[in-house]
Amino acid sequence: MAFVNENYFKLSPSYLFAEISRRVETYRKEHPEKAASIIRCGIGDVTEPLPQACIKALHKAVDEMAVRETFRGYGPDYGYEFVRHAIAGEYRERGMTIADDEIFLSDGSKCDCANILDILGGGNRILIADPVYPVYNDTNVMAGNSDVSFLEGTDENGFVPPPPGTAADVIYLCFPNNPTGAVATREQLAAWVAYARKNDALILFDAAYEAYIRTAGIPHSIFEIPGASECAIEMRSFSKNGGFTGLRCGFVTIPKTALGKRKNGTLEAFHPLWARRQSTKFNGVSYPVQRAAEALYSEEGRAQVKDLTDFYMRNAKLLREALDKCEWQYIGGVDAPYLWVKCLPGKTSWDMFSFLLENVCIVSTPGSGFGKMGEGYFRLSCFNSRANIEEVCRRLSTLKVA
Amino acid sequence: MAFVNENYFKLSPSYLFAEISRRVETYRKEHPEKAASIIRCGIGDVTEPLPQACIKALHKAVDEMAVRETFRGYGPDYGYEFVRHAIAGEYRERGMTIADDEIFLSDGSKCDCANILDILGGGNRILIADPVYPVYNDTNVMAGNSDVSFLEGTDENGFVPPPPGTAADVIYLCFPNNPTGAVATREQLAAWVAYARKNDALILFDAAYEAYIRTAGIPHSIFEIPGASECAIEMRSFSKNGGFTGLRCGFVTIPKTALGKRKNGTLEAFHPLWARRQSTKFNGVSYPVQRAAEALYSEEGRAQVKDLTDFYMRNAKLLREALDKCEWQYIGGVDAPYLWVKCLPGKTSWDMFSFLLENVCIVSTPGSGFGKMGEGYFRLSCFNSRANIEEVCRRLSTLKVA
Repeated sequence: MAFVNENYFKLSPSYLFAEISRRVETYRKEHPEKAASIIRCGIGDVTEPLPQACIKALHKAVDEMAVRETFRGYGPDYGYEFVRHAIAGEYRERGMTIADDEIFLSDGSKCDCANILDILGGGNRILIADPVYPVYNDTNVMAGNSDVSFLEGTDENGFVPPPPGTAADVIYLCFPNNPTGAVATREQLAAWVAYARKNDALILFDAAYEAYIRTAGIPHSIFEIPGASECAIEMRSFSKNGGFTGLRCGFVTIPKTALGKRKNGTLEAFHPLWARRQSTKFNGVSYPVQRAAEALYSEEGRAQVKDLTDFYMRNAKLLREALDKCEWQYIGGVDAPYLWVKCLPGKTSWDMFSFLLENVCIVSTPGSGFGKMGEGYFRLSCFNSRANIEEVCRRLSTLKVA
Repeated sequence: MAFVNENYFKLSPSYLFAEISRRVETYRKEHPEKAASIIRCGIGDVTEPLPQACIKALHKAVDEMAVRETFRGYGPDYGYEFVRHAIAGEYRERGMTIADDEIFLSDGSKCDCANILDILGGGNRILIADPVYPVYNDTNVMAGNSDVSFLEGTDENGFVPPPPGTAADVIYLCFPNNPTGAVATREQLAAWVAYARKNDALILFDAAYEAYIRTAGIPHSIFEIPGASECAIEMRSFSKNGGFTGLRCGFVTIPKTALGKRKNGTLEAFHPLWARRQSTKFNGVSYPVQRAAEALYSEEGRAQVKDLTDFYMRNAKLLREALDKCEWQYIGGVDAPYLWVKCLPGKTSWDMFSFLLENVCIVSTPGSGFGKMGEGYFRLSCFNSRANIEEVCRRLSTLKVA
């Protein structure tokens, strides 16, 4: 009989957002009169329409697919040259040395974060920040990687944990951070790159939220740090800058100079391994979606992305002001679309979830869902309509503890 | 230092179609005067535009994405209910008992065929037909599954190998077959289901080409066979019926009754494992693409799919007539868009590839690229314009061996 993957039974039974949905649904059923006033500040999904540049590009690409002469079937496994060139071009504009063929397009960053483990072997010592996006840890459990340590994010380190004293092989870093909204300075990232190079480790850098950075000098990419192209792979997404959560597109940047090793000690570049992985297990991104991604790099597209991220960052500012008025402690919301808020005294994350749901019909994300160090915090997302955010601010003001 | 996946070094260095492209490119450079007359009958990519029903659905969905009120962000990980319902509904129309939530939408069948191994454990005895779509074998090598046996497809068994005398745990079957174009009768599939049930094995059934079946009585789905829902998972694609090779969408059907086992002997359904896999490692299919997939099930869409597949099957008929006139031996092309042709006496598959390229500028796919048993054959694809197919037929006629 077919054996199933034993590792799946080591996973915690429920995925964070499924549990939130379940609890909200229960509350709705028990309080049907309040159902309409529930505002979700939980999940990090965008709410505003796609940029017009993308809409135009999508319509044009669909029209091409309707005519034999311009129809496109299978595209290149790694993405069309037009979009890889646009992406790598932006890196180069910002002073980084990234070649077009170091960009691998995908149908989303979640897939890349998960699938990257395919090219890594067993036996790696893995470091994951805590709190963290659950996918990093869950996919390691699924892959049977048992040597996973957590980097403790705390108030003291501002949720940017420094490199530990012990060696590791693979490190997950995410800045601007989901869920805390923390960003790493150039010096903090340089310390990580130095650590990785000293230990010949690989940094998996999730930069999905780079478009929200507003503070000058905060790196948008790990490759802004000298030496990173020898020890880092970067994951990027169009979900949050272009609002592609429903369109699905992201990419991973793998410099040809980033090396791992075989058990016999031979050094091997990750680049050809990922190329082989993608050509065997993936068949490219939907053509119209690639055209929409390309459009994000046009002059018009860039301006629209700026407007879109500015909109959410204005939401962040409103939420920060409301929290300040309540005198609640938080970080984030300055260079990231998330606020990481300390629970009221004596309340756990799920207590606070219930408190906010029951008192002001606001759905938050319990910090403990992101790891042990998230206990005592909750996440507020800035992805919402202005009207909803203003209403959330109004409701929060009623909670001011005197 | 980060260990890489050792198994990748057990893969053969070049992927079949990459090698074909390389050889065609070399030929083009050496014979620039012939470059324009090369006709590719190799890769199985569609050539005709998307059905109008899909084009309309795509434009409509793109317009929805342009407006806040109808914008859609993250969709359900397993696909929207509207498309899962349409797919499962077609199964039910055909008399099979498949629930909507037994359908999992994906961005293409290649991904599903590859990713399904994530939920299977190590130690499985794998059976793969030879010749075969290389992804089945390559992904098993990548996953470190070393107990892989091949079922020999031959002229004698019509490339529909019967179950072996020994037990296995996981069996890959693909009918209508890529590359041979062979189809399995109800009795032949029933023998496989009986074998799987006797051995508590799992059949991974690739039905990507079911829309090309024209002979009454040939099963379109493994689930037409009683008992299959306890021992089979089916992979389906919109690439070939709706021409979605550039749009990317497929699905996998996992009955809740299909079981595997843990090492301790406990039985476990595959369904919740795949659900967990997808919710952790995948983020759903592009919304406009899901609307296009749904459109394939409308009355208009069904008629257009019939026209589209009829078009390619007319190409198949023309190719069969041309091969008959040449008195070349082949199978396929009746219920599948591929013809599996015997090489001329004394020629290997790659000899024949060169012979066809050099003499009539036709690109074929060498049978040996699909496995040991493919040696001595080549594949002709019917995915081409009518003009190209007519020209191929004309050129083949010049090769008639007297």
